[in-house]
Amino acid sequence: MDIREQVHQMKLEAPAMAASSIEQRNHALELVAQALEAHKDQIFAANEKDMAAAAEAGVAQTVQKRLRYDEGKLRDGVAGLRQLVGLPDPVGRVLLDRELDAGLELKRVTCPIGVIGVIFEARPDALVQISSLCVKSGNCAVLKGGRETANTNRVLFDVIHEAVVEAGLPAGCLLQAELHSEIDELLQCDQDVDLLIPRGSNKFVRYIMEHTKIPVMGHSSGVCHVYVDAAADQDMAVRVLVDAKTQYPAVCNAAETLLVDRSIAAEFLPKAARGLAERGARLRGTAEVCELLAHVEGIPTVEPMSDDEFSTEYGDYVMSCKVVDGVREAVDHINRYGSHHTDAIITTDDAAAEYFMQMVDSAGVYRNCSTRFADGFRYGFGAEVGISTGKLHARGPVGLDGLVTYKYRLVSHGDIVAPYASGEKSFHYRDLA
Amino acid sequence: MDIREQVHQMKLEAPAMAASSIEQRNHALELVAQALEAHKDQIFAANEKDMAAAAEAGVAQTVQKRLRYDEGKLRDGVAGLRQLVGLPDPVGRVLLDRELDAGLELKRVTCPIGVIGVIFEARPDALVQISSLCVKSGNCAVLKGGRETANTNRVLFDVIHEAVVEAGLPAGCLLQAELHSEIDELLQCDQDVDLLIPRGSNKFVRYIMEHTKIPVMGHSSGVCHVYVDAAADQDMAVRVLVDAKTQYPAVCNAAETLLVDRSIAAEFLPKAARGLAERGARLRGTAEVCELLAHVEGIPTVEPMSDDEFSTEYGDYVMSCKVVDGVREAVDHINRYGSHHTDAIITTDDAAAEYFMQMVDSAGVYRNCSTRFADGFRYGFGAEVGISTGKLHARGPVGLDGLVTYKYRLVSHGDIVAPYASGEKSFHYRDLA
Repeated sequence: MDIREQVHQMKLEAPAMAASSIEQRNHALELVAQALEAHKDQIFAANEKDMAAAAEAGVAQTVQKRLRYDEGKLRDGVAGLRQLVGLPDPVGRVLLDRELDAGLELKRVTCPIGVIGVIFEARPDALVQISSLCVKSGNCAVLKGGRETANTNRVLFDVIHEAVVEAGLPAGCLLQAELHSEIDELLQCDQDVDLLIPRGSNKFVRYIMEHTKIPVMGHSSGVCHVYVDAAADQDMAVRVLVDAKTQYPAVCNAAETLLVDRSIAAEFLPKAARGLAERGARLRGTAEVCELLAHVEGIPTVEPMSDDEFSTEYGDYVMSCKVVDGVREAVDHINRYGSHHTDAIITTDDAAAEYFMQMVDSAGVYRNCSTRFADGFRYGFGAEVGISTGKLHARGPVGLDGLVTYKYRLVSHGDIVAPYASGEKSFHYRDLA
Repeated sequence: MDIREQVHQMKLEAPAMAASSIEQRNHALELVAQALEAHKDQIFAANEKDMAAAAEAGVAQTVQKRLRYDEGKLRDGVAGLRQLVGLPDPVGRVLLDRELDAGLELKRVTCPIGVIGVIFEARPDALVQISSLCVKSGNCAVLKGGRETANTNRVLFDVIHEAVVEAGLPAGCLLQAELHSEIDELLQCDQDVDLLIPRGSNKFVRYIMEHTKIPVMGHSSGVCHVYVDAAADQDMAVRVLVDAKTQYPAVCNAAETLLVDRSIAAEFLPKAARGLAERGARLRGTAEVCELLAHVEGIPTVEPMSDDEFSTEYGDYVMSCKVVDGVREAVDHINRYGSHHTDAIITTDDAAAEYFMQMVDSAGVYRNCSTRFADGFRYGFGAEVGISTGKLHARGPVGLDGLVTYKYRLVSHGDIVAPYASGEKSFHYRDLA
């Protein structure tokens, strides 16, 4: 069977997975945790093979770090699984319970989405994390990992799959795709795959988004802004800015652009540049920024940049910078050049803050805090499916809720529409819950 | 400006529309209602032109009926507008209010989606209905109607647009596309249009779905089932079946397929066929169905059909029919051939009903009632955006809620992530609302 047929089969089996009890699904997660620990030597050995091949192929050190699956990753994975067990069941929640008329009761009840396609690059820990989220939420998942960790992925998948089946879940609920050509085949399965979750580089995610009819949850870029308003506490602004840029520059919620109100630019920019320089970060800026910082000592030279570079996601110790005329121009800039991820204003002015938070068209709009808070764990969701910059279904950091949909259940004793259409009967809505 | 530039401009203006108050938006709807009444002669005259052209072009009578915009349509439209004014504001609802730590407060607040593309065939009343829903929910909308009612659409749009601007909403919040070529241009605006709502024939909706990267809300087909279980009250089953098929056969929630348990087929099928025949409807069926009904008097001859025809949406007084071995085979059939819209089981057996409602992968799963109840107005949503057979964002009949998303607002006094990452500080989640 090729992958398309397998996925079609999975689609038909998805309702059985959706009908599994939360006890079964939690039991499966517990067995997966145990199995990962029991098979760790085998997993690490497979990963050593992948690491050796990567070293030989001259793969960059930063990428090699992501390929590694070691004691630390295993420990985090197992801890994550046990945390997941403790989370409430996302399935079967009654969102609406309404009597339409006597004896005619409507319920809107959450249920799994069905078949989730997960395509990820590099990190084998993503396989453990996302397959567990799918199991917890009663979804079937087809998993395609990067070829760089093919050995690790294969062992991890087998260990997880065996444990899930041992817990009594349908054998068809998890499927691994191993061939690179299967990515494009999977992208064509829009009749059978309900949702795609890609994890990897911007380029990789963009490729997925551009080559499928299946809804994609995620983001291809994170161009986050910090706008320092005229009425900012400038010491706070430096502290927040430095955290947003340098606390972990490689991730999507790190800030990429600093916007400063013109009335404070001459005073604030030198402080900002020094604060960033202390943490090894430098600025690039418009001609105005370059001029304002030209004679400031102890900071790296500010590289000039053009307007069309303001959508750049550096993921590094570099930051774009521009001077703006107040909160209105800041908002226009963000909505034009940003990626609708997370943007912050630093101000003591309530009106400016409210304008910013209302008008910035992003998943996260922050006042006086670092963009780095944009994260499912920090928001208290327990587990994170990903961060979405789309506006449909789920937006921003997505927890288990993002893996469920709902269905309407209507129960009566033979009611038909004709008497309502003729006016003989009428609805009497009464919410029951 | 071509339509793509206009839509790009709209995208940048969408936050201003999103920031409008509910008083302004309701006032706009009231002014639209008044303006429609004040300009009715002009509207009807434009429609007469379209109707004359349609008659001359030999357009089918059923289609002509949908092109007409008369006193009745106007009255319904105005009544709908006033009902919409009475509905609560879908924008600004606080879905989550959580203290992450002292002084660090997270809110999830509903907001408009942004720019909605509405593409519809034939019915000019859809222009009134959907543009009002967009206004109520603070969204911008670009509207493309069918060329058959170009004159009517133009007058309706102008009347609505003028009223909306008079109410103080941004002039750019509504835009009309008039050229047929603009449909394909609109489908390419995936950077600026957040959601597409197509209204029209299955073929038309499928074309939209297959030619855009923009998320589409709707359904291309409605293949709904009635399964009559062994334990059915057979009189009730006939009543529900006849309503589901014949009460209004042209609509998506009308039933297209009858499934009957084998143990009662010989007894039930003649009653079903007679009930349908009384309302002018006939059956098509498998060889087994044809045989069981071959010698029944007073019903139309049952036309034989093959398995691959079971996904047919007749939209007419015809129904597919098959005998199945119990609820399991019924569910398999529905998940395989259905359109995930709405399906009903008729049974007195709680276990069979629960199995059916759990396992059928459709937006609506009904027990002992007609599939024709699948409708936003009947569900008590007040206004209906459409019915979605997709599982992401909104499923089934969609009310105003389907036109909003949410954003996260995070407010603090200078909090940064570093001390949480180092373990110096930790989150203390406390839900406030």
